[in-house]
Amino acid sequence: MNYDAIFQSAIDRLHEEGRYRVFIDILRTKGQYPNARCFGGNGPKPITVWCSNDYLGMGQHPDVIAAMEAALHDVGAGSGGTRNIGGNTHFHIQLEAELADLHHKEAALLFTSGYVSNEAALSTLGKLLPGCVIFSDELNHASMIAGIKNSGCEKRVFKHNDLDHLEQLLREEDPETPKLIAFESVYSMDGDIAPIAAICDLADKYNALTYLDEVHAVGMYGARGGGISERDGVAQRVTLIEGTLGKAFGVMGGYVTASRMIIDCIRSYAPGFIFTTSLSPVLVAGALASVRHLKVSAAEREAQQQSAAMLKEKFGEAGLPLMPSVTHIVPLLVGCPVKAKRISDILLAEYGFYVQPINFPTVPRGTERLRFTPGPHHRADMMDSLTAALVEIWSRQEIRLAA
Amino acid sequence: MNYDAIFQSAIDRLHEEGRYRVFIDILRTKGQYPNARCFGGNGPKPITVWCSNDYLGMGQHPDVIAAMEAALHDVGAGSGGTRNIGGNTHFHIQLEAELADLHHKEAALLFTSGYVSNEAALSTLGKLLPGCVIFSDELNHASMIAGIKNSGCEKRVFKHNDLDHLEQLLREEDPETPKLIAFESVYSMDGDIAPIAAICDLADKYNALTYLDEVHAVGMYGARGGGISERDGVAQRVTLIEGTLGKAFGVMGGYVTASRMIIDCIRSYAPGFIFTTSLSPVLVAGALASVRHLKVSAAEREAQQQSAAMLKEKFGEAGLPLMPSVTHIVPLLVGCPVKAKRISDILLAEYGFYVQPINFPTVPRGTERLRFTPGPHHRADMMDSLTAALVEIWSRQEIRLAA
Ligand SMILES: Cc1ncc(COP(=O)(O)O)c(C=O)c1O
Ligand SMILES: Cc1ncc(COP(=O)(O)O)c(C=O)c1O
Repeated sequence: MNYDAIFQSAIDRLHEEGRYRVFIDILRTKGQYPNARCFGGNGPKPITVWCSNDYLGMGQHPDVIAAMEAALHDVGAGSGGTRNIGGNTHFHIQLEAELADLHHKEAALLFTSGYVSNEAALSTLGKLLPGCVIFSDELNHASMIAGIKNSGCEKRVFKHNDLDHLEQLLREEDPETPKLIAFESVYSMDGDIAPIAAICDLADKYNALTYLDEVHAVGMYGARGGGISERDGVAQRVTLIEGTLGKAFGVMGGYVTASRMIIDCIRSYAPGFIFTTSLSPVLVAGALASVRHLKVSAAEREAQQQSAAMLKEKFGEAGLPLMPSVTHIVPLLVGCPVKAKRISDILLAEYGFYVQPINFPTVPRGTERLRFTPGPHHRADMMDSLTAALVEIWSRQEIRLAA
Repeated sequence: MNYDAIFQSAIDRLHEEGRYRVFIDILRTKGQYPNARCFGGNGPKPITVWCSNDYLGMGQHPDVIAAMEAALHDVGAGSGGTRNIGGNTHFHIQLEAELADLHHKEAALLFTSGYVSNEAALSTLGKLLPGCVIFSDELNHASMIAGIKNSGCEKRVFKHNDLDHLEQLLREEDPETPKLIAFESVYSMDGDIAPIAAICDLADKYNALTYLDEVHAVGMYGARGGGISERDGVAQRVTLIEGTLGKAFGVMGGYVTASRMIIDCIRSYAPGFIFTTSLSPVLVAGALASVRHLKVSAAEREAQQQSAAMLKEKFGEAGLPLMPSVTHIVPLLVGCPVKAKRISDILLAEYGFYVQPINFPTVPRGTERLRFTPGPHHRADMMDSLTAALVEIWSRQEIRLAA
């Protein structure tokens, strides 16, 4: 039994496929976002970040920073306990009330991340409903897949956003079998949107519960930032809505919202909620300020949509391989992990633009891409420079000839 | 199919067993810890916290607060991305280097919590080692149990800290089968300690890897706060050491340390690490200050051990049902969930002392208890008041007569 050889071969496989990941070492510069500093060989170098999920720059917003600073001085760094044992602060309770209201639900529950909220909520629901079958969109996020797997339930995977296929699978089950349909609103790597109302119609017809991940839509869509379900006026029809505090809200943490009873069940039964130190009150205070701000301010959302539309237009005019996206996400198709990484490396080293290559397992093999997320702070001239750089790199012989 | 009825009955079961959890709503008062404010009927009321896992009060330490404030102003609230996509900051890299050094390992990897570090590391190791069998102490924490379950490996549970039983189970397996022994150093609900060196001897004899959860020991034991494995001089013999940033270090987050190759495998393969927004740089900066401080300062550890010894002595002299504990944890046995909750409720309502009752599933049924964690800031006179209050409550007819 040679353990080292096994671990080494696991790493070798990644190198062979050209998808061994090297993390770039950066610090954002507060007040100057999307500018940042990149650490490496010769000390910090200024760069522009094009792939942050702090979509609206709320991680830099003065209200958020002030709220976190106040909490830090009022209560200290960490919560010091699980929610049940000393770690339930007044901030947690206030934020849960705010999030329940945001999604037109009776109750909400905070988790340490969006990943944990999906894993914990889906696995717990599945365990509580005897014989439940879970219907899962084929492009669902890894955290939902983990939750479904850990629920121990039967899983039926439906083709991406395909209502006919979903209905066919629902029809095949016994009417008395508990059913849960799990899907996302904005699919973050492609930028397309689920037909939420039509999925709710199917759920009604076949008496299924619905679970909607709005991680890439909360703060971004809807009059108060309640996501696509708010924009489409269907929040009340969805059984559970899940979101993150780490993307448009700019901080860190995750949550689910639903009826009081369902939230009470998850609160009482989910190990991933019960057995862990609760979110730092500093983060909770920051998220509270962020959610409250975006409930009443649409300026960031509108500026962000304008930036995304402008970048898509510039990429399109320049003939770059833009993938269809109806949202704020701007992906360019590359189709090869080595080439995607190479373009990204040149862009950073020679132009100081940072965009991460997206490879398997984040996206299917053969659809490797560069994924841009322009925000309200990315100006038109920055987009021109970026577009010119990409055109130049794409024209290089080494990129044209790459597999 | 009546979903509501199913959810309702899940909640009813908890009420029937007397273990439905009600979270108390508190805010600590920075600079005055263990004092806090409790929110409820008539507005905030001052209380003293006796059950925090911020064992050393580091969540209030000026160096930690200053580091978090500086990071907040320098880089902002959240990281804005996963470690791979924009969320890898210079703070993360520095803290990983500091933690690797703390545990005498080549490398370390940060997670959003100790729970996630256990779940992600154990499930990934188990998946990478073909046919691996995992040997698990029967009192292992829920997060380790989740990781082992999600690894899909065969599991052998050995009796708590029982070397003979562990050896018997190891002997039964084929020498060529990959093996991993998973255990904790300080068991946090009982306060006993694992025989780490002797478990490493067995691991050598049967060619097994070892995985040690030091969550309740990091910062607290060893000359530099490296945990029981440092105190016992055996850190280098353990394959992986896991810890949290949310207890003695006073902030939030988790980590594993091991050889560079094993860390690289977990970094590259664990969904719970890959597909989630990285720890906020504000938390990472705070944890970095905390770890660095406790590496060179033993004052907090010593004061905490004195407090724990003093409280045990006072409880013992007063004839309270102290459970045997060789560590900083001071548990009083109650043995009934309803009674444990009642004592805790009276203590809070009438005396303003907060200690959470610990019920199933956190501890086995029949061993329900109150768990006190006195720290450097709990003075002798506070302990006298607490002891007198407990003696008075324990003598009440309703408590004496309770099941
Ligand atoms: C669709 C989706 N759900 C959930 C998550 C996890 O959220 P968090 O980053 O808060 O863990 C992500 C990304 O990280 C995601 O893209
Ligand atoms: C033994 C043990 N391991 C892991 C954890 C999880 O650590 P964290 O609170 O950082 O999630 C805990 C408690 O929460 C614990 O008691």
